[in-house]
Amino acid sequence: MDKKIFTLDFKVRDYECDMQGIVNNSVYQNYLEHARHEYLLSRGIDFAELARQKINLVVLRAELDYKLPLVSGDEFYVDVHVEQSSRVRFDFVQHIYRKRDSKLMLAARITGTSLNERGRPFVPDVITQLFPAGEMTE
Amino acid sequence: MDKKIFTLDFKVRDYECDMQGIVNNSVYQNYLEHARHEYLLSRGIDFAELARQKINLVVLRAELDYKLPLVSGDEFYVDVHVEQSSRVRFDFVQHIYRKRDSKLMLAARITGTSLNERGRPFVPDVITQLFPAGEMTE
Amino acid sequence: MDKKIFTLDFKVRDYECDMQGIVNNSVYQNYLEHARHEYLLSRGIDFAELARQKINLVVLRAELDYKLPLVSGDEFYVDVHVEQSSRVRFDFVQHIYRKRDSKLMLAARITGTSLNERGRPFVPDVITQLFPAGEMTE
Amino acid sequence: MDKKIFTLDFKVRDYECDMQGIVNNSVYQNYLEHARHEYLLSRGIDFAELARQKINLVVLRAELDYKLPLVSGDEFYVDVHVEQSSRVRFDFVQHIYRKRDSKLMLAARITGTSLNERGRPFVPDVITQLFPAGEMTE
Repeated sequence: MDKKIFTLDFKVRDYECDMQGIVNNSVYQNYLEHARHEYLLSRGIDFAELARQKINLVVLRAELDYKLPLVSGDEFYVDVHVEQSSRVRFDFVQHIYRKRDSKLMLAARITGTSLNERGRPFVPDVITQLFPAGEMTE
Repeated sequence: MDKKIFTLDFKVRDYECDMQGIVNNSVYQNYLEHARHEYLLSRGIDFAELARQKINLVVLRAELDYKLPLVSGDEFYVDVHVEQSSRVRFDFVQHIYRKRDSKLMLAARITGTSLNERGRPFVPDVITQLFPAGEMTE
Repeated sequence: MDKKIFTLDFKVRDYECDMQGIVNNSVYQNYLEHARHEYLLSRGIDFAELARQKINLVVLRAELDYKLPLVSGDEFYVDVHVEQSSRVRFDFVQHIYRKRDSKLMLAARITGTSLNERGRPFVPDVITQLFPAGEMTE
Repeated sequence: MDKKIFTLDFKVRDYECDMQGIVNNSVYQNYLEHARHEYLLSRGIDFAELARQKINLVVLRAELDYKLPLVSGDEFYVDVHVEQSSRVRFDFVQHIYRKRDSKLMLAARITGTSLNERGRPFVPDVITQLFPAGEMTE
């Protein structure tokens, strides 16, 4: 299991807000994805390079709990903690916190896998190395 | 409980696809939201008009199971079925099906509520009327 | 020169509106692109298939005149008329009209080209055939 | 006329790239808008606060010249220089430069105005103060 928590800083952009004046519910998945990709990059895993090699990291399931809405001007950070939930599945546990008061705005669990060109589960070595032997959660 | 199933037709737009050549995971929430709003409109509930009255329909929780990816050129439809899960919470059970073979592409449960200007749960009459007396699910 | 005018129907989706309650300025480029791609498809030119063959249709210049804002609930249509402005450049002249009163909402001229894998201008036969001999505008 | 050039740093997010593996043409307008709003905020003009007061800053015309495509991993910066082109119109001259080699990726001129609740041009004092007397460009 990954013990260190990766975080990435963001600021709400006005085009991300909808007519209610709050960040639209779909945009949080953009924030979460960008934080995951930057986390993976920090571990030597390049989403775009894998895509060029026809190895696709894909989302299988997303669970998002919306706690408080982000609004124009808000600065926030997204954390990324990853657990291996099976030989070919990974759970990204992520939170979004507002910077000025550390309030939890959103909690999420995103389950992903890695597919080869034929759409079959295939976990390249760079990803396997994220998880030291024996640290799979089940 | 609402017995009739509302559906809305869509076609993938190329800008919705990412570098893997598939619809980006966040875009499915756009599809689901648009289908929910058109469903509500068909029942006399206008999201935009409510927003102008400072009554905000918001998402509390989203669960999405990604089954198969939509790609450029795909036509699909989204269904909407709503259940009242508590006095002030509604569960939208939604599916996305590919048109050419009726394959299930995504299954979702979106829990929403309605808030007044002070951010307190407030369910206007137009919404209450969606649910005949005694049909609350719990 | 292409004499027939291609049009495509749309309806504003609420997530496309920003905090001013109007469709965000960037979203019009999405509408224009989708209409162009559907136009090209109707002529046998598949943007996604070309991308898989490493032939990329790209935008070189966009000019957009915003006349009136689209809002939640608006139905509208986008037209596409294409002119060849040089051997390797194409001008898409496009307009967006509101359906209920045929008001012009946006006028645009989008200049595009086609690039091969090395980023050099390359116009495949399917595109050349759009323009009968001698009908180039200059 | 404003002599100092405001710049804002960005990094491409993978969801902004389309199936060609490059940032989609509409996304550049998002970058430009966010840079303009941050510029305005640095001068005491809050787009969101104005929207709440029913004063809407809107785009009248956009001209964008796409020079080179941004791709996954690119860091870049956007500059903002504003000129008053009439009593109620402002031209934002903006460029996007790739960080690693300072290459110009996009050049744009965005013409905007400010409207009151009835949709009539109305320039609040905070904006007038951007332009010292006698410095209007025509």
